[in-house]
This record gives sequence, structure tokens and C-alpha cells, in this order.
Amino acid sequence: MSSTFGTLLKVTTFGESHGKGVGAILDGCPAKINLSEKDIQKQLTRRRPGQSKLTTKREEADLVTILSGIERGKTLGVPIGLYVANKDQRPDDYKTMQSIPRPSHADYTYQTKYGIRSASGGGRSSARETVGRVAAGAIADKFLYEIFGIEIVAWVHAVGEVEASHVDEGVISREDVDQTIVRCPDGPAAYKMVQLIDNVKERDDSVGGIITCVCRNVPPGWGEPVFDKVEAKLAQAMLSIPSTKGFEIGSGFAGTRMFGSQHNDPFVLKEGRLGTTTNFSGGVQGGITNGEPIVFRTAFKPPATISLPQTTVDFEGRKTVLEAKGRHDPCVVPRAVPIVECMAALVIGDFALRQQFRQL
Amino acid sequence: MSSTFGTLLKVTTFGESHGKGVGAILDGCPAKINLSEKDIQKQLTRRRPGQSKLTTKREEADLVTILSGIERGKTLGVPIGLYVANKDQRPDDYKTMQSIPRPSHADYTYQTKYGIRSASGGGRSSARETVGRVAAGAIADKFLYEIFGIEIVAWVHAVGEVEASHVDEGVISREDVDQTIVRCPDGPAAYKMVQLIDNVKERDDSVGGIITCVCRNVPPGWGEPVFDKVEAKLAQAMLSIPSTKGFEIGSGFAGTRMFGSQHNDPFVLKEGRLGTTTNFSGGVQGGITNGEPIVFRTAFKPPATISLPQTTVDFEGRKTVLEAKGRHDPCVVPRAVPIVECMAALVIGDFALRQQFRQL
Amino acid sequence: MSSTFGTLLKVTTFGESHGKGVGAILDGCPAKINLSEKDIQKQLTRRRPGQSKLTTKREEADLVTILSGIERGKTLGVPIGLYVANKDQRPDDYKTMQSIPRPSHADYTYQTKYGIRSASGGGRSSARETVGRVAAGAIADKFLYEIFGIEIVAWVHAVGEVEASHVDEGVISREDVDQTIVRCPDGPAAYKMVQLIDNVKERDDSVGGIITCVCRNVPPGWGEPVFDKVEAKLAQAMLSIPSTKGFEIGSGFAGTRMFGSQHNDPFVLKEGRLGTTTNFSGGVQGGITNGEPIVFRTAFKPPATISLPQTTVDFEGRKTVLEAKGRHDPCVVPRAVPIVECMAALVIGDFALRQQFRQL
Amino acid sequence: MSSTFGTLLKVTTFGESHGKGVGAILDGCPAKINLSEKDIQKQLTRRRPGQSKLTTKREEADLVTILSGIERGKTLGVPIGLYVANKDQRPDDYKTMQSIPRPSHADYTYQTKYGIRSASGGGRSSARETVGRVAAGAIADKFLYEIFGIEIVAWVHAVGEVEASHVDEGVISREDVDQTIVRCPDGPAAYKMVQLIDNVKERDDSVGGIITCVCRNVPPGWGEPVFDKVEAKLAQAMLSIPSTKGFEIGSGFAGTRMFGSQHNDPFVLKEGRLGTTTNFSGGVQGGITNGEPIVFRTAFKPPATISLPQTTVDFEGRKTVLEAKGRHDPCVVPRAVPIVECMAALVIGDFALRQQFRQL
Repeated sequence: MSSTFGTLLKVTTFGESHGKGVGAILDGCPAKINLSEKDIQKQLTRRRPGQSKLTTKREEADLVTILSGIERGKTLGVPIGLYVANKDQRPDDYKTMQSIPRPSHADYTYQTKYGIRSASGGGRSSARETVGRVAAGAIADKFLYEIFGIEIVAWVHAVGEVEASHVDEGVISREDVDQTIVRCPDGPAAYKMVQLIDNVKERDDSVGGIITCVCRNVPPGWGEPVFDKVEAKLAQAMLSIPSTKGFEIGSGFAGTRMFGSQHNDPFVLKEGRLGTTTNFSGGVQGGITNGEPIVFRTAFKPPATISLPQTTVDFEGRKTVLEAKGRHDPCVVPRAVPIVECMAALVIGDFALRQQFRQL
Repeated sequence: MSSTFGTLLKVTTFGESHGKGVGAILDGCPAKINLSEKDIQKQLTRRRPGQSKLTTKREEADLVTILSGIERGKTLGVPIGLYVANKDQRPDDYKTMQSIPRPSHADYTYQTKYGIRSASGGGRSSARETVGRVAAGAIADKFLYEIFGIEIVAWVHAVGEVEASHVDEGVISREDVDQTIVRCPDGPAAYKMVQLIDNVKERDDSVGGIITCVCRNVPPGWGEPVFDKVEAKLAQAMLSIPSTKGFEIGSGFAGTRMFGSQHNDPFVLKEGRLGTTTNFSGGVQGGITNGEPIVFRTAFKPPATISLPQTTVDFEGRKTVLEAKGRHDPCVVPRAVPIVECMAALVIGDFALRQQFRQL
Repeated sequence: MSSTFGTLLKVTTFGESHGKGVGAILDGCPAKINLSEKDIQKQLTRRRPGQSKLTTKREEADLVTILSGIERGKTLGVPIGLYVANKDQRPDDYKTMQSIPRPSHADYTYQTKYGIRSASGGGRSSARETVGRVAAGAIADKFLYEIFGIEIVAWVHAVGEVEASHVDEGVISREDVDQTIVRCPDGPAAYKMVQLIDNVKERDDSVGGIITCVCRNVPPGWGEPVFDKVEAKLAQAMLSIPSTKGFEIGSGFAGTRMFGSQHNDPFVLKEGRLGTTTNFSGGVQGGITNGEPIVFRTAFKPPATISLPQTTVDFEGRKTVLEAKGRHDPCVVPRAVPIVECMAALVIGDFALRQQFRQL
Repeated sequence: MSSTFGTLLKVTTFGESHGKGVGAILDGCPAKINLSEKDIQKQLTRRRPGQSKLTTKREEADLVTILSGIERGKTLGVPIGLYVANKDQRPDDYKTMQSIPRPSHADYTYQTKYGIRSASGGGRSSARETVGRVAAGAIADKFLYEIFGIEIVAWVHAVGEVEASHVDEGVISREDVDQTIVRCPDGPAAYKMVQLIDNVKERDDSVGGIITCVCRNVPPGWGEPVFDKVEAKLAQAMLSIPSTKGFEIGSGFAGTRMFGSQHNDPFVLKEGRLGTTTNFSGGVQGGITNGEPIVFRTAFKPPATISLPQTTVDFEGRKTVLEAKGRHDPCVVPRAVPIVECMAALVIGDFALRQQFRQL
């Protein structure tokens, strides 16, 4: 496994979906940051299952305990241990699936890789693994805001065919995003998204979606080309989230259909520094931030676990029909919003720490 | 900078666009692989500038020298040093641009990060940096094929609005791809692409495009979740290539508009192992290969350096009009095909080395 | 901080001396290893404080909980979370020391580095941090033995001026070592060591010592030159243990006084493979194991925290006399024996995982 | 192989003893440092073979070429490629040794690990590999001095039984060290050392030695516990140098025979900061620098390649007598002085880059 991420700001996660609990160690967080469990809990609560009718019925309060790294409410600069106990495990729900690998889930690949796998609910491949990332990322998010004023906000851009229209990346806040349970700040689109998810859920099916994320106030000059370009590490971070199939920054795939004369972002003088009039670059040029908002999108596939009957084969290759039990999200994007934000915070936080005396 | 990539198979690149030369060190290559400069030259020649009317006029033969790591035609298991001298530097072409950061290029961000930058042609942010990656990746490509039979083939899927129609991912070869100078195996589409690039070039403009890549015969069970999922490292690798703005695997962004019942890949028995009837997963599930072809796409923006006049500001913030000199590609995708293949080979090669006794 | 160690077998530790608890995450452990808390507890119990009259009076049972990574008694190949709650914290013991940095302890350097430090007992610089390493290393120790038959045994070679005479590195076992509370298998020397430590303790002073460690049955060909030579990673591992000041392998410092004709280990045929008649190399040549026992020694200084009055200055630079309270070991080597073994196991375990198809 | 070292300041070396050449890439060097080949050459010349009657007769000028990373005499913040061509290869000298692994050399272990090995002169296990480290370390040495005033000086403390008496670590300079060809600043001891080496050489034998190194003016607060303590990374760095068998810092092994009341370094006020009256700690406490000189010693064994007949076996296990040809140093420590300095500079340089906003 590769459960550690980051060069100077390192997160290491542990825990399986239906084991004792899940958590993370965050190493490299600067000292003297005010930190309590409350600061972390906000994002965990936005991620937790059972938060609305759109999500799985698994009931987890996902209360975090800080095991180490703070004293009298301040970080010590040492590793911060983070732990969330699992409360609502139901390994028995998965019994019938033990001999049948769920199509498009990780049962088959984990079994092939390790010769063994968690008996229930995906184990480590479950989205429950992201609890540790969200807890750690919430800390990065906090120090990025407090030290640099960096704001990271994600929202649901699309569910299935329903897309949000223009959202103002310059001002959108998490409060705006949380106005609707689907976390889409475009009201009419949000309404249709909720309807679609309701409908899909009723049909025991699932549907995909897209999340957009903006990071504002990131200073220019951050990022580490060649291989650790800002967009490269963001892409790795996003594609490491379960169920993701795509990433694009700035103009993204649409930018491939543009001409250079349209796509180039002209420079202008902005408050004493160079800025750009458009932002097709998405805040990065040559892998380094240019001071404009970093804007990127992540594609989530429809969840693989559905209760609709599926014709497939068991591990022995015998044809069978699978009707998956268990409690699953019909669409992951509403709950994935804080995951995207927290992974972005871990990436940007690492670049913050790596950005230092580049010049004499 | 972060010029090293990989965990066990490590590539480190060096060199600037208009400096003495460019190159790489590849560490971790298995011993006893037959290797000569000829093996590496093939991909470098597919990448080299001046290879067709569609590319920059900079003339570089890009002949590689192996500085270390082989003896009597075989690898020793030690670092392989790779060097390509620059022959056709023209730093003077860039003089007028020294005071004006090219819009959407990395002049401004490098200057901000380092307080200094290569005086000419982008230095390290130039696509010329990829020479080292291609040389190193060609070696990974070779040992993956010789040891495992793995075949990696990329091609141009789109240039601007022109898209290739169906290409058979199961059989397409590099020879097929090289039938046209634009490296699109769909003849009629290729014809239109060439026309489009010709036209764009004449207008001193540039255009973007999309490359698809398939990796066949990768054994199931490779890849390192959580953070080093196959798709996550491929995404990092692709987004580390200059001019890239997006990455998708399998169904990608289109998959977000599907239902789970459509998107799930049912298992069937295939030659003694489990396979899938469809491949929306793109060959990976839960970050681990499933034995099906790995299929992904990478989005390239239109090159930033164009000769069309652009209204922008200089480093001091004074309004000006830039007409970039220098020799530039109107569209990078034909030459980026071997870059995509070689970066994929470095990713898959690293997973090959990391895949070992997972089980007792 | 840098709390993660290893390339493929990675341990990450967390926790402060007088915080909630201490622990570790071990990532990369092979799947399907039989594992229970009992397997880990053995080494923790050998390390725990209060185990004999020679150690600190702090009473910690140091019972470990496995938080993740196993199911039905077998490892899953995923991260193993390990946690030991602190029971006998007494932060108040350290109040008087808050304004006075203990000489040769890390109070001053942590304060300088982080601008803050754990209010009590050294926090993260305490030897209590090694609980996580021992727990993780015990797992590596187990799989190295079960898969390869590797045996790792350490013992106290010296306490102050008292040195053990010859110990047979080829057969010595942990049981032999544990015959005396000072963990020296040479009875008469052990008797004198206990006397010396008793005496030192009575005088409120402390004393140093040396631990020897042997790793038997490590296959030839392991290790990763250039920078990750076996001896280099062992040296890093040993010097990362609190209170260590030196490391030597094979002939060590004494070897510098020998001639090549004496020091060279002649090869002979041994059970079908090449072996050596002497082992001044200490089991490694050129950073790679040669199949002979790996033998190394680690030097531990006398513990810095002593109750004898010490003339020093406080953080403000004002002269003062410090009489340290708290419960401290007069000599760390008896308890450091399992720490040395476990760190060695983590190093060798990582090389085991990295050793793979080096050859076609 | 593991040919890359460092977290932010990364060196990657390449090249075999009797191949085309040797070199390194240094990534992470700050921008805008004045740098020319002359700056690097000094240390390479101190390391080069053939510099005095005490060294091998292999004649190499070891002239370095900077392949990349500087422009107009200043570093760009990008990778610096460094290359030294081999001039005086004599692979034929090694022919008779191809079937006989040299005792205590790496012929056998490389062959076992890789199933192949460099046909001549040790290939990558040769001390010639350190050319790249010295070139890269000379750059780190330069920027540490220019930015922080850090001075790193090493000298020969012992050759065989001959030891230098007191050397003033506070003022000793490289010029002082270079007063004698053996690089020992204690004149009478130096004289005896030269005699000893002459004598050993005449007898076709070899002898070991010890190098002491001091790093002055390193600011307090550098270093990354837990696993990357200053002493831990120095130990790794030193034990990665060919022929090393031991490392100690501050009091080292002698410190194990002291009592805490003797060994503790009392604090005093020194020029506005806390300093210590003694320096048994060797400049580090808890893995972090305390502002006192960092002092450490490295043990070098007698070189393995000697021309004296040695009874051993060939690769097939057949008894034979080996009389090694080739040109070898009778004692490596005089030439190893700049290697130790340069590795120390790479370690300290990396900590310099990692030391950043630890505090709000």
C-alpha cells in the first residue's frame, strides 16, 4: 500500500470500513497553530454518512479524537494523531458478496493483489478511508487560511446530465455551498439534482457527477516543477479519491478545442502585481501558481455498489446474478465536496512548506 | 524543483531548452536487459522537432548518448545516464521577450518563484525538458515489453474540434499511429487535423488536442492504493507534461453522466481469469489493475507561444504588444505521443518493481 | 518533523511522552501474515518502564491495541494502526523544569526549532516515542522470521567501563539475553553491570552503554547502494534512537587500525554458496548483504536527565542550579535492546520488500 | 539501486569506475548563487587520484563540466548537471579478477544482487562513484557558506594506530588541513602517518583510518526528528561512503563510559543565545542543532584491493590465490577528506532547505 502523501506536510491514513476505526497522522503541520477537535469536526460532519436523505443510511457521527500533537490548544509541530471510531459496522450485510466480486468495485483487484481482502464493505477501498484525509486536510485548510488567507471552496458542478450554470469562483463560500443538501450553489440546478438522485435511489441505481474547486489567495510562485507541478499533484490527489475518473484544471478538456490566441491569458497590472484578465490557465503556469484562483474539476463515476440485479460471475468464474446489500450512496458528490477541499488543502499546504528560500 | 519521479524506478531529468544539453538518469532499471542507444533513439526521433511540416522548425537530431549503466549491451542494474546535446540553440530569438512575460507561458511564474529565469526559450519549462523523460521512458517501455509483454500505444484523438472516430484499442500499434504525420490512426480525421494545423500555423496561431493511450497486457494486481493508485500516478505523470490541462481514465468525464447500472463492468471468465465485458473502468479498480487494457486520455492546450500580436504588460506592468519570435509548434499533440507513452511506461514500470511479495 | 521511515515498508510514529498515548502506523507489511496483539506485546513488554529495579519507576503496562490492518488474525496488506495509551503521566513533575532547559536534553533545541514545546517530559523527544517503533518493528521481525528465517538478537555489550567478553553471535537468542535484567548474556559482566547501574542510580547519576545486534540468515544480495546501503540505513535507524552517539558495523572503529591483509574476509565454499571465514565486513560488502551475519554496535550516552544538581542557565540566560525531578532511567541500554532489534527489523524488512526482480 | 539522496536538496549520482564518466544531478539548489566550474573543481582536485605519492597511480584530472542549471554564472534554481569524463580507464587490469571475487570487496555481492556486474574495477561500488557527490556537495558547501557562513572542515584524525592529538575544532581550516599530503593538521602525527602509508604501500598492503569533521556556524533549530535527526542523516551519509565501518558524533563511543554528570553540557549565555561550556553532544540534541559546532568522526577500513596474495575461492567455489592487479590506494583517508565534507554539506544543505516556517 501507499498510504502516505506529501513531501514535508505528510498525511498517513489507516483503517478499514468495517474495522475498529479510521484515522490519520498528519506530520509537518507548523507549530503554534490554534487547534481543537471542533476545527476538524466541521469538515468531518460535512462528509459523514447519514447527513441527508441523499446519502447512505449508515449512521456515523464521525467524532474525531486528537491523539497527539497539541497541548493547551496549540500545535507542537509534531505529528497530529487523528482517530474516528467506527460505530455502525455491519459486516454481515456483506456475506453474500464474499464469493462474488462486485462489478467495478475493488473486491477482485484487492483479492488479486493481496490474496486476501477485507471480508466486508470494501475494507480499505471504501470511501470511509477518506475520513482520515478529511481530518488531516481540515488542519491544513486551517493553517493555510490563518497564515496566508487562502480559501478553498468546492461545490457540486454536475450530477448526471444536470449541470450548474455560472458560479462566481471569486466569492463563493462554503456557507453558500451548504445552502442545499446536494451542495450545488445554483438553486434551480440543485433542485433538479436532488430530484435526479432521489429518482436514481428509488430505482436502486446510482449516478455520477462533477465537483469544481477553487483555491483563492494562493501566492504566486508556489509549486515544484518538473514532476510536482501544482496541477500534477492536484491531479494525483484527486484521482486518489475513490470513484474518480477524471481531472481538469482551468480550461481543461474544453481548452483543447481553443486557439492559442483565445486561450492565452493576457497579463495586466493588478494591485501592484501582474495578474491576468482571463484564467484559462486555472491559476498555474508551468506548474507554478500565478496568483490567480486555482480552479479545477474532478469527475466521479456512479457508485459501483447498487442493489439492482447484475449479471456477472463469482470468483470461480461461475455465472451468477448479484443483488448487492449494504448501505450505499446513490451519488457520492455531495459528500465528496469536503474530501476534494481537504485533499486540495493537503496539496497546497505541502507546497506552502516547500516554498522557501528559492533565491538568495 | 522536483525533477525526480518514481519510487523504485526513478527518473531524474536535467537541462534547459537553450543550454548545453538535456538528459536524465534512470535508476532502478532491472539488470541484464539488452539495451543500446538505438533502442532509445526510436522514441526520441518520434519526439524530435523538425520531423514534419507540422512541428517547430528547430532542427535537432536529438541523438542520445548512454553515459553509464550498461556494459557489453546489457544493463547492470545501476543508474543509466542519458544525454542529448542541444545543437540548434538560438537564444537571441528570445531577446525581445526578456522584459515581457509571454501570456500563459511560465516566464512570469518562474521569475516570481526563483527571482531569476533562463534568459531564453523557457529554459526548464520548455517541452525540451521532456527529452530526458522520453529517453528514460523508452527503457522502461523496453523492459515492460520484454519481461511482461506489455504494450503501450498512444495516438492523437483530437486536434481542436476534429476528433478521431473509433480506434481499436486492442490492436492499434505504433506503426499504425505513425502512418500519418499527425499520429492519428483514423485517416479521414487525420487529414482534417493536418489541414487544421496547417491553417492555424499560417495564421501564426496555435491549437490544442487530446491524446489517448492504451497499456495492454498489464497483469492484474499492480498499483498501490491509497495515494499511489494507478490512475493517480498516471494523472500526476500526464499533468506533469508541459501544456496539459486534463486527464481522464476509462469513462472519464463522460462517465459522470452515466448510471451505475450502465457503467459497471460485468465480470466474465476470460482465458482462465476474470475479465470484464465492458471497460468503463479503464483497466483499474480501486487503484489496482484488473488485467483489462488501461485506457486514458490527456488534454493539451494550444501552445502559449504564438506570433500573433498579443496585448499584455511587461514585467513592470506597462502595457505593450507582444509578437513572439522563436520557433514553436502550432500544435503539440503529434510530438507529444511518445512523451505520453514514455511517461506511462515510467509509471507502469515503477508499479512493476513495487509489485512483489504481497502475500505469503 | 520527519516521523516516517522506510521506502516500501513504512513506519510512521506519533505521540508524546505525557500526552494521551503513543503509537504507529506500519504500511507495507505483506498480507496473510498471522498477527495478533500478543505477537507485538512481547517486545513492548521488554521495552516497558518499570520492568526491573534498573529502570525508571514510571509504571506503564504498554498494552498495544491493533486499530486496523488485520482481520481474523491475518494481515490484509493494508496499514496496521498500533496504539498504546499512556497511563502514568505526571506532567506536574516537570513544572520546575519549564523555565530551565535540561543540559544535553532536547528542551532547548525543540523550543528553538518550534517556538513551543511539550510542557512535560520531553514530549516527542522522549524515549517513549519509541513505543510505536517497537510495536511496528515487532511485526517486521515476525514476518522476516516466518518468511525468511531471519533472526535478530541484540544484547548489552557494555555499561560504562564494564564490557561483556565473547558472546557467540551465531547462536545467541533473546531468551539467553533475558537471563539477566541488564540483558547481558555474559553472567559475570552482567553482575558487574547491575552493580554499576545500582550505584549510579543511588548517586542520582546516569551511565552510558553499548548494544550489539546480530541479524542472522539474511539472504545475500539485499540492500540498495549507493545511498541506501545496508550499513547506511542501519546507521540512520540507530542514530535516530534517542541517546545514541555512535554506530559501527563489523570491525568498526577497531578496523581502522588493521591492515587490509588482516581485515579482508577470505571466501570459502559454505553449503553451496560462497561464505567468508572471518566477518570483519559485518555481513555487508558494498552496501549489500553477503549472507554472513550482520553484526553492528550502537553507542548510548548516559541519560541527560539526572537528579544531581547541575549548574546551568534558564531560558533567559540567568544562572541557576537544576535538580531534575521526574522518573528516569539511570542507564537506557537494558530497555533499548528491543528498540535496536525492532529498528533493525524495520530496516531489513524494507530491504526485503525492495529486493525483487533485479535480474531478468 | 538507490542513487538519490536528500528530501529537498537532492543529489543523484551516476557512472561506473571504468565507464565513460561519472557525475551527478543536484536538484533543489537555491537560485541566484554565483557558481562556476572553478568553485566545484577545488574539492574534486582534493579528491582526485594521483595527487600525491600516497594515492593510487590512476591519473585523472577529474575536470568537471556543468551541463545545466546555471546561466551567466548564476544558478537558476533548476537541476545542475555535473559531468566528469573518465580518462585513464584500464579495464584490462581487472581481467584476472573476473572469475575471482576480491575478498571484502563488492564483486560477490553485486553479482549476487544483479546477476551481472561491471567487468572492471568495481563499477559502481568503486570510490570513483563519489566524484558526483563531491561535485554536488561542493555546491551545497558554497551556498551554506555564502548564505549562512557555515564552515565545514574535515581532516585525518588517525591512520592505523597513529592518531592526531588535539586539533582546535573552532578554527581549523581547509588550508591548515592541506599543509600535509596526508591531510592531518598535527605535524608530527602527519609525519608518522605518511611513513606508515609508505610502508604499507611497499608491502602491497593497505591500512584504515579515521576522519573527523566539524561544521561550524550551523544555526540552532535545524534537523528533523524523529527519523531524520541531524546525527541520523549524517550517519547514513557517512556510512554510504565506500569503505566506511563506523560513525560517531560528539562523545561517541567514549561517551558510553561516562556518567551523566560528566557528559551533560551545561548551558551558559553566549553572545545573546544559549550555548554550552562543553560539547559532548557534538552540536545536536534530540536530533536538532543547538548552535555549537557539529563534530563527528567516520571510520574507514583498510582498502580491500591489495596486491598481496590472498587465499580465497573463485565464483565457483574453487580454492585459489588472488594477487590483485589494478591501481589502488593503500589508505583512503587523505582523499576521503573532501568526500566527508561534501556529504556533510549535502546533509546540512538539505536541513537548511527543510527548515522553514516551523512557527506561526
